[in-house]
Amino acid sequence: MNRIITIGREFGSGGREVGRRLSEELGFAYYDREIVSEIAKRTSLSEEYVHQIVERRPIAPFPIHVGRSFHMPLLSPVWDQGQAIYQEQHNIIREMAQKSDCVIVGRCADYILREQSPFRLFIYADMESKIARCREKGKDAEGMTDKELKQHILDVNKDRAKYYEFYTGQTWGDRLNYDLCVNTTHADLKRTVSAIAGLFA
Amino acid sequence: MNRIITIGREFGSGGREVGRRLSEELGFAYYDREIVSEIAKRTSLSEEYVHQIVERRPIAPFPIHVGRSFHMPLLSPVWDQGQAIYQEQHNIIREMAQKSDCVIVGRCADYILREQSPFRLFIYADMESKIARCREKGKDAEGMTDKELKQHILDVNKDRAKYYEFYTGQTWGDRLNYDLCVNTTHADLKRTVSAIAGLFA
Repeated sequence: MNRIITIGREFGSGGREVGRRLSEELGFAYYDREIVSEIAKRTSLSEEYVHQIVERRPIAPFPIHVGRSFHMPLLSPVWDQGQAIYQEQHNIIREMAQKSDCVIVGRCADYILREQSPFRLFIYADMESKIARCREKGKDAEGMTDKELKQHILDVNKDRAKYYEFYTGQTWGDRLNYDLCVNTTHADLKRTVSAIAGLFA
Repeated sequence: MNRIITIGREFGSGGREVGRRLSEELGFAYYDREIVSEIAKRTSLSEEYVHQIVERRPIAPFPIHVGRSFHMPLLSPVWDQGQAIYQEQHNIIREMAQKSDCVIVGRCADYILREQSPFRLFIYADMESKIARCREKGKDAEGMTDKELKQHILDVNKDRAKYYEFYTGQTWGDRLNYDLCVNTTHADLKRTVSAIAGLFA
């Protein structure tokens, strides 16, 4: 069976960098934005639109998740589209996991692939460090005050949590859903990645 | 400055084994029960009594922690003794950290040594795995049903959480208080320890 590493990550914590470095060090395939491109291709929707749906909260008329049951008294075309995109994402992630060893960033891959026992990483950091990383790496941060940037980080992570909880019925960031939780606040990412790679040697 | 690894751990998760193996692999000093023995020696109290106080919840007439302030309208000799033991433990942990590179298990060492920037591990596992480990390793489990053992594990961890929160004002197990959180449920401990040791190579 292929070895699969899934990465849940707080926005601004360097989760994508950990994933990319890990895939390079291990020679595993790396899937992140590639998933969005593939969904867009298959559904004929724009990448921008797909990205908005798979990165942010699910589109729904109102909160409807009760345990594992979905109650949808009022369906809408937008809701249908959100569900179709999630279903396509689900298929693509399963196909990718069957193709080769791989690292998959975000997108509930830990849950979607739970029967293949992936190694589930969660990457996080303190707020100060997330703000600094966004300033260093992201274009989003340009023109934002620290207060605005902090709120933006909180909003994105809140959306990720809602998205994850909606589709998995689990709590995003709850340590029991992961095999290893890495705080990147004071971490040397290169060394940390080498250590994690050692688990797959 | 000496390299210090502190280990917070859920009862039954194998935190002590991780600590012991890590100290052996790195050649660091290892402190766990040794701290209790040293406190007993210095305070002339029995090891059993000291153990009960430093492992379980702090002795206090009633819950009194509000943020970082302590409100103690009703002091008692037992309370004084608890405080004296904590103070002695505090001194001993700081002395140990000054002596050499070391691994310290439990006892709020992450907080006590926060100015020396220790590497802070938290070891956890799911309940089923903790029950299995207790059955395998601990004498406590003998003669308990699974239900009783589960309750015992919950009780010990609740006490650890209260003790930690009482003396640090922080939440026990909150990922932001640790650099790395390791789920031992499906982990190969030997390999995991080697990976962590790689961070100190």
